[in-house]
Amino acid sequence: MAEGERKRIVVVGLGLIGGSLALALKGFEGYEIVGVDVSQPTLRFAAEHGVGDRVTEDAAAVLPGADVVVLALHPRGILRFLEEHRARFKQGCLVTDVCGVKSAVMEGAGVLPEGVDFIGCHPMAGTEFSGIEHAFAEMFQGSHLILTPRESSTPEHVALMERLGAYIGCRDVYKTTPEEHDAMIAYTSQVMHIIAVSVCDDPMLFACRGFEGSSFRGCTRVAALDVGLWTELFSLNRPALLTVLDRLMENLGAYREALASGDSGKLAEKLAYSAARKREMDLPGPDLLQ
Amino acid sequence: MAEGERKRIVVVGLGLIGGSLALALKGFEGYEIVGVDVSQPTLRFAAEHGVGDRVTEDAAAVLPGADVVVLALHPRGILRFLEEHRARFKQGCLVTDVCGVKSAVMEGAGVLPEGVDFIGCHPMAGTEFSGIEHAFAEMFQGSHLILTPRESSTPEHVALMERLGAYIGCRDVYKTTPEEHDAMIAYTSQVMHIIAVSVCDDPMLFACRGFEGSSFRGCTRVAALDVGLWTELFSLNRPALLTVLDRLMENLGAYREALASGDSGKLAEKLAYSAARKREMDLPGPDLLQ
Repeated sequence: MAEGERKRIVVVGLGLIGGSLALALKGFEGYEIVGVDVSQPTLRFAAEHGVGDRVTEDAAAVLPGADVVVLALHPRGILRFLEEHRARFKQGCLVTDVCGVKSAVMEGAGVLPEGVDFIGCHPMAGTEFSGIEHAFAEMFQGSHLILTPRESSTPEHVALMERLGAYIGCRDVYKTTPEEHDAMIAYTSQVMHIIAVSVCDDPMLFACRGFEGSSFRGCTRVAALDVGLWTELFSLNRPALLTVLDRLMENLGAYREALASGDSGKLAEKLAYSAARKREMDLPGPDLLQ
Repeated sequence: MAEGERKRIVVVGLGLIGGSLALALKGFEGYEIVGVDVSQPTLRFAAEHGVGDRVTEDAAAVLPGADVVVLALHPRGILRFLEEHRARFKQGCLVTDVCGVKSAVMEGAGVLPEGVDFIGCHPMAGTEFSGIEHAFAEMFQGSHLILTPRESSTPEHVALMERLGAYIGCRDVYKTTPEEHDAMIAYTSQVMHIIAVSVCDDPMLFACRGFEGSSFRGCTRVAALDVGLWTELFSLNRPALLTVLDRLMENLGAYREALASGDSGKLAEKLAYSAARKREMDLPGPDLLQ
C-alpha cells in the first residue's frame, strides 16, 4: 500500500487525554496515527516521546486525508474546531471526541456536511493532572467507553469505535443518548468534582495535615482540576448538574438531621440502608478485594 | 529468659484493625503478641493464619501478665472492657486503643487505677471491609499514627508507642489532644463517610453502572461501612461532626449558587481558588506522580 493510501487517524489536541489516546492507538489496524496541536512545546514533547506516528501543527493539511478524526480539545474548542474546519473533512470520514459533555458537542457537530459522520465518545478515564507530560498509553485500561452515535451513524462506524475502545484497553462500551449521558455524568463525575472542591474550601484544610487517611485522599483527589475545562463542562451541563447537586444536598441534610436528633437507632437505620446500596452496587468479583 | 518473663502485648479484638495489628506487631522488640477475641471462628482463623503468637478467648487470664494492652474494639466495647477489666491490668502497664474518636475513650479510661497508663491511639488506616479475614500486616504502611497521651503519661510509654508505630510501618506519629483529634477527624474522615453514604442514597445509583469513573469510586468506596461502628463513631463526636457538615453544605451551596447564576467567570474564579488550595495542600514529592 502506498504511503498516500494508508488509513489515518488524526488526534486533535495532545493534552492528557489526546496524548494518552495517541499513544494507546499506535498500531491499531494499520492506521497511521497523526497528532495535531497548536503548542510547539507540546509538539516537541510528543515527537520526542513517540506520541502517535507523527505530529503536526497544521490541522488543515492532515484533515482531508483522515478517515477518523478524534477531537481531544476542551468542549468550546471542539465547537470552534468543527465550525472552522467543517469543509476539510473528507466524505465518509468519522469524527469523534473525548469530551465529558455530549449534548452540546453533538449539537455543535450539526455543522458538519452530510456524509461526515459524528459519534460522540467519552472514555471514563483521566487523572487530576493535565498536559502531555502526564499522558500514558495505559490510561484507558479497564475503564468504560461511552458512545453517543447519531441516529444516522453507520453500523460500520459504530463497530470501528467499539474495536478502537477494545484496542486501547477499555473494559466495555456503552451506547446511549447525549441526554442520558449528560444526566449520568452529572452524578458520577461532575458532582464528585463539586464535592472535592467544596471539601477543599473548608478552613481546616491546611491544618489537617497528618490527620488525613485514604477516604480524604480518595474524595479530594480530583479537586486539583483544570479550571478552564471544568468551568466549561459544568456550564454546558448546568440543569442536570443542579438537579444532582440539589439531591445530594438533600441527602446530606437528611443525615445531618438524623445525627442532630441524637436518635442513634435512626442513624444506624439510615447507614444500614446506604451501606447496603453501596454493597449491591458493587459487582461481585475480584474488584471487591482491591 | 523464662517463658513467664517474656514481655507481652495483648491485642483485644481481632477484627480488621486488631487482626492487622497483631500480624504487623509480630517480632516487635521481643514481645509476645497475644490476640484476644470472643468469637470462636475468629480465634480459629487467627490461629490458622498466625495472627499474633497465640490467641485466646480468656482476657482475664492474659491481662495481668500484659505490659501493653491494645483495645481494638468498637468505641462502646472499649468503654465496657475498661469498666469490666479495670482491676486486671498490672501496675506500670500501658493501655492503648485504635479507635476513631478520642475524647470519649480518654474519658472512659478514667476508670483505670493509678499506675495504669492510657495513651489514646488512632492509626489512620483501614479499608471498607471488616473482619479478620480482611486483615493484613501491611495495613499501616505509610499511614499517619495519632497519639493522645494523658498529661501524666510517661515519656517511656510515649516513646514505646512511637517505636511501635514505626515498627508497623507508619509514616509519622502526631501527638495531640483528644479534642483536637476529634475536630480534625470529623473533617478528614467522618464527613467523608457521610458524603459517601449520601451519594449512594441518590436514586441514580444502580442506573449509573457503566458511567462511573475513578472519582466516583474514590468518593463512594467507604460507603460500604460497618454500620454499628460508624453509628458509634458519629454519635460520640456529634458536635464536631455537625459543625463540619454544616460548613460542607455551605460550601456546596456556594458552588450551587455560582453555577445557577450562569456567571461562568464567577464559577471559574471559585474553581481556581479551590484547585489552588488542593495543590497547596499536597506535599511536594513523588506522591504527586502516583
